Amino acid sequence: MRFDAALPLQSGASLRDYSLSFETYGELNASRSNAVLICHALNASHHVAGVYAGQAKSEGWWDNMIGPGKALDTNKFFVIGINNLGSCFGSTGPMHTNPDTNQIYGADFPVVTVEDWVDAQARLLDALGIQTLAAVMGGSLGGMQTLSWTLQYPDRVRHALVIASAPNLTAENIAFNEVARRAITTDPDFHGGHFYQHGTVPKRGLRIARMIGHITYLSDDVMNEKFGRQLVAASQGDAERNFFFSTLEAEFQIESYLRYQGDKFAEYFDANTYLLITRALDYFDPARAYGGNLSLALARAKAKFLLVSFTTDWRFSPKRSREIVKALLDNKRDVSYAEINAPHGHDAFLLDDARYISVVSSYFNSIEVVA
Amino acid sequence: MRFDAALPLQSGASLRDYSLSFETYGELNASRSNAVLICHALNASHHVAGVYAGQAKSEGWWDNMIGPGKALDTNKFFVIGINNLGSCFGSTGPMHTNPDTNQIYGADFPVVTVEDWVDAQARLLDALGIQTLAAVMGGSLGGMQTLSWTLQYPDRVRHALVIASAPNLTAENIAFNEVARRAITTDPDFHGGHFYQHGTVPKRGLRIARMIGHITYLSDDVMNEKFGRQLVAASQGDAERNFFFSTLEAEFQIESYLRYQGDKFAEYFDANTYLLITRALDYFDPARAYGGNLSLALARAKAKFLLVSFTTDWRFSPKRSREIVKALLDNKRDVSYAEINAPHGHDAFLLDDARYISVVSSYFNSIEVVA
Repeated sequence: MRFDAALPLQSGASLRDYSLSFETYGELNASRSNAVLICHALNASHHVAGVYAGQAKSEGWWDNMIGPGKALDTNKFFVIGINNLGSCFGSTGPMHTNPDTNQIYGADFPVVTVEDWVDAQARLLDALGIQTLAAVMGGSLGGMQTLSWTLQYPDRVRHALVIASAPNLTAENIAFNEVARRAITTDPDFHGGHFYQHGTVPKRGLRIARMIGHITYLSDDVMNEKFGRQLVAASQGDAERNFFFSTLEAEFQIESYLRYQGDKFAEYFDANTYLLITRALDYFDPARAYGGNLSLALARAKAKFLLVSFTTDWRFSPKRSREIVKALLDNKRDVSYAEINAPHGHDAFLLDDARYISVVSSYFNSIEVVA
Repeated sequence: MRFDAALPLQSGASLRDYSLSFETYGELNASRSNAVLICHALNASHHVAGVYAGQAKSEGWWDNMIGPGKALDTNKFFVIGINNLGSCFGSTGPMHTNPDTNQIYGADFPVVTVEDWVDAQARLLDALGIQTLAAVMGGSLGGMQTLSWTLQYPDRVRHALVIASAPNLTAENIAFNEVARRAITTDPDFHGGHFYQHGTVPKRGLRIARMIGHITYLSDDVMNEKFGRQLVAASQGDAERNFFFSTLEAEFQIESYLRYQGDKFAEYFDANTYLLITRALDYFDPARAYGGNLSLALARAKAKFLLVSFTTDWRFSPKRSREIVKALLDNKRDVSYAEINAPHGHDAFLLDDARYISVVSSYFNSIEVVA
């Protein structure tokens, strides 16, 4: 959907003549009271559920959670998947043309924040004629958007499902983002973010960024279980082979897995989008305007909350979710919290885990929707 | 010290006409029974203690631990710091000339393992006329060498001090090493490891490698305490400033700290050395030849052991030290183990911590040395 009116951004800049890509699932009811907005994390899009006709492997990124009869039941709810500004999957982003210059934005695409995204999402809802959301849901960075919805538009959100998220990033998380960004921006093919004009793609940097990301999305335990110290040769039926004794060859299976993931990512993800999205993560910090006091910051929220965290998630640890829970309870808000004992690390929020799915399912079942 | 005889390596290759740099502290006693060998980790050298004349900031990397009257008292012990093959701090490495080709080794320097290093160290001791070591001590990768000493030369080691180490790397640790290596080897200035001839240095890759390393050497907690979410501007007296809203500028102090560490490292560390040393870490796995059974692997050891780990060390966690302790106890070896409650992560083994220093001090006090 195209928007003509300029969107003012937190940075002071603004975006005009932009588009937002979105998908919907299920039917909006007569009272327009059954809409659920899904916010995406780093590497995702508006395609949250279902399969595109004729494309067998095109499941939405939260298809295990969302659909007819699923935890978020599209027979009951009208689900909206939205793609954020700055993305490379449809909505206006660095690969598009700046209407002010008729040049590709590239590095000139303005820095967007979680709050900016939520503002843009709210405009989409205005355009769809939806005043109040039955729920907003998101994991990781999507959870930050969900939390921010309850603060920016407290009267438009009845329920907020904040999954595997945090009230802000720790220094360690910022550090990992920064290394990934430096890998991209110091790649000679980056050309200060204007690589499109040079016909290059900073693939080296994107590969490194993705490899770092992958390590932090998994738990140490699941990596040991999945790869351990297995050699590449062992998977080729040569378990007894000695080492290659090479610093260049992939010797261990974890190495070839990471290289594969890096290569794949570099083929489709935009480098400027990566920079923008990691920066949005870094900046999010609703308590900042309240001297770091999260309880004061969350006083505006009126929604009911479900928080979910995963025990082995070291990037967005349960401790961080509990900080949100505590701040909401300090404000006497209605909060449910589930800490799921799952081995998969941060990635768990995207995976099938019976207890996790059932917690979300029960929560959505409890949401009343009047036709 | 120069060695003419070729050193056979685990890979099947060999090194001839090589040198080993070392420093000694204290005096070797008449019975030659008070020698302690110090093995270094990734980013260190033979200069373990003391200050070079006229160079105020040249403290050895373990100077807080080693010296007259210190935990490892050089009034009692004769301490030997050695630099490993493949290093860039003095011993023969990739920056030196290959006697077979009269070209700089570069990427042709053979892959060396922990076992190869220990063999080379043993030859140095032979040359110094030292048959038996009172102790071997090392942290991290140095701890792996220490452990390997007790297996390769069980009759030449009376005591082994294995600090912040592990019986092998986990998949996650290999993964971090691999990302760092890929950052270096995909830097266009790497030239397949023969960058010396091209007059280039793969500094971009070295910077990224060092930034990743730094993150994993620190604990999440100490990073939060030291840097938190503090802005660069706050350190410049402008605490109230808004964000830069930039993906290229260092916005948070943790970012500028990591950039500084990366820049510094890229100025002095050799890229091929980095590859070799991280590979030695990856390969070390004494249990591999015993079907993964560490207890069987350690049956050869005869030394007495002190193991030390640090609670917040997530790169070489206490759990990994306990695996070594258990395997030694399975063999009824004499083992002391201290798990130090320290906030600093893996770096703790290099820092002043009263309990840690006192454990090491007590252990060395208990070692009998007959003049």
